[in-house]
Amino acid sequence: MGYTDLDQLAINTIRLLAVDATAKANSGHPGAPMGMAPVSHVLFNKFMKFNPKNPDWANRDRFVLSNGHGCMLQYALLHLFGYAVSMDDIKAFRQLDSITPGHPEAHDTPGVEVTTGPLGQGFANAVGLAIAQAHSGGVFNKPGYNLFDNYTYVYFGDGCAMEGIASEAASTAGHLKLGNLIGIYDDNHISIDGDTKCAFTEDVSKRFEAYGWHVVWVKDGDNDLEGIEAAIKEAQSVKDKPTMIRLTTTIGFGSKLQGTGGVHGNPLKADDIEGVKKLFGFDPAQSFVVPQQVYDLYQKHANEGAAQEQEWNQLLQKYATEFPQEHADLTRRLSGKLPEGWEKSLPVYKPSDPAIASRKLSEAVLEKIYSVIPELLSGSADLTGSNNTRWKAAVDFQPPEYGIGEWSGRYLRYGVREHAMAAIMNGLAAYGTVIPAAGTFLNFVSYAAGAVRLSALSRVRVIHVATHDSIGLGEDGPTHQPIETLAHFRALPNCMVWRPADGNETSAAYYSALTAKHTPSILALTRQNLPQLEHSSIEAALKGAYPVLEAPNATVTIISTGSEVSICLDAATYLQKNHGVVARVVSVPCFEVFDAQDKEYKLKVLPDGIPVLSVEVCSTMGWERYSHEQFGLNRFGASGPYKEVYAKFEFTPEGISKRALATIDFYKGVPVRSPINRAFQQIQ
Amino acid sequence: MGYTDLDQLAINTIRLLAVDATAKANSGHPGAPMGMAPVSHVLFNKFMKFNPKNPDWANRDRFVLSNGHGCMLQYALLHLFGYAVSMDDIKAFRQLDSITPGHPEAHDTPGVEVTTGPLGQGFANAVGLAIAQAHSGGVFNKPGYNLFDNYTYVYFGDGCAMEGIASEAASTAGHLKLGNLIGIYDDNHISIDGDTKCAFTEDVSKRFEAYGWHVVWVKDGDNDLEGIEAAIKEAQSVKDKPTMIRLTTTIGFGSKLQGTGGVHGNPLKADDIEGVKKLFGFDPAQSFVVPQQVYDLYQKHANEGAAQEQEWNQLLQKYATEFPQEHADLTRRLSGKLPEGWEKSLPVYKPSDPAIASRKLSEAVLEKIYSVIPELLSGSADLTGSNNTRWKAAVDFQPPEYGIGEWSGRYLRYGVREHAMAAIMNGLAAYGTVIPAAGTFLNFVSYAAGAVRLSALSRVRVIHVATHDSIGLGEDGPTHQPIETLAHFRALPNCMVWRPADGNETSAAYYSALTAKHTPSILALTRQNLPQLEHSSIEAALKGAYPVLEAPNATVTIISTGSEVSICLDAATYLQKNHGVVARVVSVPCFEVFDAQDKEYKLKVLPDGIPVLSVEVCSTMGWERYSHEQFGLNRFGASGPYKEVYAKFEFTPEGISKRALATIDFYKGVPVRSPINRAFQQIQ
Repeated sequence: MGYTDLDQLAINTIRLLAVDATAKANSGHPGAPMGMAPVSHVLFNKFMKFNPKNPDWANRDRFVLSNGHGCMLQYALLHLFGYAVSMDDIKAFRQLDSITPGHPEAHDTPGVEVTTGPLGQGFANAVGLAIAQAHSGGVFNKPGYNLFDNYTYVYFGDGCAMEGIASEAASTAGHLKLGNLIGIYDDNHISIDGDTKCAFTEDVSKRFEAYGWHVVWVKDGDNDLEGIEAAIKEAQSVKDKPTMIRLTTTIGFGSKLQGTGGVHGNPLKADDIEGVKKLFGFDPAQSFVVPQQVYDLYQKHANEGAAQEQEWNQLLQKYATEFPQEHADLTRRLSGKLPEGWEKSLPVYKPSDPAIASRKLSEAVLEKIYSVIPELLSGSADLTGSNNTRWKAAVDFQPPEYGIGEWSGRYLRYGVREHAMAAIMNGLAAYGTVIPAAGTFLNFVSYAAGAVRLSALSRVRVIHVATHDSIGLGEDGPTHQPIETLAHFRALPNCMVWRPADGNETSAAYYSALTAKHTPSILALTRQNLPQLEHSSIEAALKGAYPVLEAPNATVTIISTGSEVSICLDAATYLQKNHGVVARVVSVPCFEVFDAQDKEYKLKVLPDGIPVLSVEVCSTMGWERYSHEQFGLNRFGASGPYKEVYAKFEFTPEGISKRALATIDFYKGVPVRSPINRAFQQIQ
Repeated sequence: MGYTDLDQLAINTIRLLAVDATAKANSGHPGAPMGMAPVSHVLFNKFMKFNPKNPDWANRDRFVLSNGHGCMLQYALLHLFGYAVSMDDIKAFRQLDSITPGHPEAHDTPGVEVTTGPLGQGFANAVGLAIAQAHSGGVFNKPGYNLFDNYTYVYFGDGCAMEGIASEAASTAGHLKLGNLIGIYDDNHISIDGDTKCAFTEDVSKRFEAYGWHVVWVKDGDNDLEGIEAAIKEAQSVKDKPTMIRLTTTIGFGSKLQGTGGVHGNPLKADDIEGVKKLFGFDPAQSFVVPQQVYDLYQKHANEGAAQEQEWNQLLQKYATEFPQEHADLTRRLSGKLPEGWEKSLPVYKPSDPAIASRKLSEAVLEKIYSVIPELLSGSADLTGSNNTRWKAAVDFQPPEYGIGEWSGRYLRYGVREHAMAAIMNGLAAYGTVIPAAGTFLNFVSYAAGAVRLSALSRVRVIHVATHDSIGLGEDGPTHQPIETLAHFRALPNCMVWRPADGNETSAAYYSALTAKHTPSILALTRQNLPQLEHSSIEAALKGAYPVLEAPNATVTIISTGSEVSICLDAATYLQKNHGVVARVVSVPCFEVFDAQDKEYKLKVLPDGIPVLSVEVCSTMGWERYSHEQFGLNRFGASGPYKEVYAKFEFTPEGISKRALATIDFYKGVPVRSPINRAFQQIQ
């Protein structure tokens, strides 16, 4: 309350930084920053708890700009509050190798929590951040020690509100009664196609109420700073529901084109810029101007934040003496390191152990490691019994009043919401105290492609437990049988796709996924049973590829993954017995990991001189990288008992042998170079 | 009204067919059919207009089972009403090569409109079917000639209701005031993880009201046949809103496990089956029983449907004389054939024509063909000005009362709802009178991956106008720059990915997409300008790949797509000038089409004897199919002016030349076999 000219000056400073930066870049979105500057001023300066000098403070309030195209707003705020974002960085907006890219990227810019821009993602990330806060509070808070009590604030516009992923996440947040989550909806009636009346006429407030959110409407988001402040206060006071503040604003406030689509995604024209600067009392001849009193005002708040952090650190010190175990656990988690020796809990298998589906092998891993890795938070998109993602003693993460779980619970019921699940995991991972893992069918990881992409781009450790990974799921049929999915995610940079062939490889997959601090993993797992291989081991599998059948006099190498490896081994026996042909067999549970090995090792796995045949019941796309000939499925599968489906497509020892013989024949008399040998290095 | 024992007998017959079929298959979902049999009996027998002897009748009511796992319900209905689904087909449920697969597949089973199972898809397909009806009515109906007045009915369960795609589609349907759309929500409180209270506690009715739907609640969907009938009548009478009937049912009605997750996705146990049969007055010793009076009852309704079709055909005959032009247009559309000679409208370019971005070239195609292909329905996910999907004279498809469009309008404002857009297009295509095309950024086609997959699986002609197809979009940065996307969709069976290099190739892409009756297409188009190539032509491009620079004495072939082709041509010049090296250059605008050419042609394009280098600013995955060495981008892009981004990653004449020289060097003295030569044929 008691807003003065200085507040207005600060607001207009933010607006003009966005105007100047987009004009200089000749690219970008001035409209949202100009419209959202008032609420940002109030939120950041009156409410938010953060220390610009330590953007990693664990109990800071989180801010997510889900409408990431408006990122000049965020960059301006980060600069003005004293984060390591300089005026030169602002001037380098959208320029090559700057820390102010076209959309906010978490790993690039101090103070950016999550990577946003693809619409709806940030909203769901925020739900993940809020879940992580509630969970961390549930685990670590003690009477007198409210270590985790931060809020998560998320801005979203009409675009985000239209995206299904945001709907899924909003429904989830409502169910989970996340009182620590405050969404601010930039209700400006404009999207790229112009007025939202052409496509988006629903009652957004009513929809959020239906999800179980508290809803407040600020009708004049351009000017009513008191109203904004009161709305945020009200939102903070509602503890058993997330709050959505519908903030009606004017996009591009101050521009000649304000309130139109013209100001959404294009810099203002020169005369318009001049007009805006005059309107706001700034010198039209100058650009990138920040009045000292604005810096001072924001510095004051930043100092308060630094002091709050110091208080918190003192509290943490006290906590260390009273709760040394919890304190040690917390500081270890925040360091990103796993507990010493955790990997000894990974199950190890002998060839004589029974055949088990890799989804069950995955369950066995979780059952063994959940107690030694307390930050592991599992879950499923309503396929718990099929994904086998829940250890027996698991407690659900639920608001306690439901009587079916606790805030400290480590199993999340995501509902049939794959896209939000993946994006919520990105938020969970970004919070810093949990490692999220969650299941769906491999085929439905595709529903989450947008979010998985951002896991990879923003370099977070999340684990997708992707069961029913092929035609091996049988009767459910082609609608559920992935063909293109492995190729899709193998083509995604910084994403590990594991397709383990047995128990040891499954343990290796988890080892790799859990220790990859900056890389998401997809574990493709079978519905059907797999035998334990004779020459598998965790160590070997951690090379990404290794021979499971070595034969010095082999005339063909058969390379395969997952459920097909054991069939390839049978094919090798068949070839020997029926054709006197000697084959080697290589298992390659993870392309990305194999690619990272040195050339010498790779050439041992795929030596020069003998041709390589790849075998996988999915698209052959990408297999040429490791093989001369490819046996796969470049068509959709079929509904039926899985063994019959495998036989239909000839993924049998006979079918593989036939192709191995053809491969040998085709390369007879031809000098064979290993596919590992390449003319030049790829750009990384 | 006036329901008798015969009605109950019919209902229980449906239930027991589902029980018996899932038991025989030892797989499948009996719960939903048992719960939804009453509403199905009322809907199919009292309301729905269809002729089982002609499942293609243009004005039939459409039925979509969005909760496709309950497909034994649909198969039972199809059988009982006399579609070409025999009792043997029912007995072959979920068996290899049957017409009763694990989830409904449109191309397999007469009477199945769209392929469902992946949750939420069917719901969005239904919105597409309803839009197509409204549009077809707007185009063809005349006073006294209500040729198109069918309803679209869609069942959906809690799973579909949780999926974001269904939220997007419901919001769209509400905005569009689709009074012809009736959704029946199987409110059974059970999903795979058990009671929905663990993840889904929102107020679904209120949410649909917020979208602008009319909502009715039938509280006893198990027994209240009159209530069901009244609800459907009410829904039919509401003309300016879609209706959602919330139907509270008991999943697995009659089973010992009714009302629990135990009956959702597993066949009933033997003793339970016995109990259910006794409860329903059936002989427990018999299976697959249909009382003759049930056949008779349904046959009667089927006969009424046949008579209705005959009446409609007579109306159509009269229409032919009064509106011969519209009649000719309609019958042509229903045949799936394009107008004679339409392809003459495709733009053709000379090398001297100016450089133009392929998104603008695409716009030029639309501008030329919209008037000759009246069934083309364009649109965009709120990126109209960026996708260039709207011809100047286009009228929006909107409810006329908004004053911004007409039912007959041919431009759809999908909103920022990529996933629903793609699934709505599947429904539009399935209706039979329109060809849908719609735009978003290529990167965000990934949001729609689930629906694009079903376009391909269900073999429908839809066109994705996917602009901003690479790092060439520049400043928006890595969040918007696709890397894995082309590989992803190239790996998807029955999906054409076109990446044209210039104007003629863009015209070819449209020719191919529009004439591919059973295949969806993705047209990857640039933001940046592309020069017109010297040797391009529509005919050549329609081979999928062809040389754009031929040189008999070449020592390397450079193969590329889209925006990189002209840079490769510059590289060829650079190689000649600076290194005296002769290169051929091949453009491969579409893998899928090139793969379909005969081997002789393919070997002419990629001849034996010289090595091939591929160049594309995306993942190299899949390029090994056509090349020995690959130059691509197996990392995320960067935010900056696009030329600088290209230079950063060395996609310049120099950068390409460097790799071409390395390739030549690497293969010096090695016999080089064309990648076209393979040891064996792939399974198709």
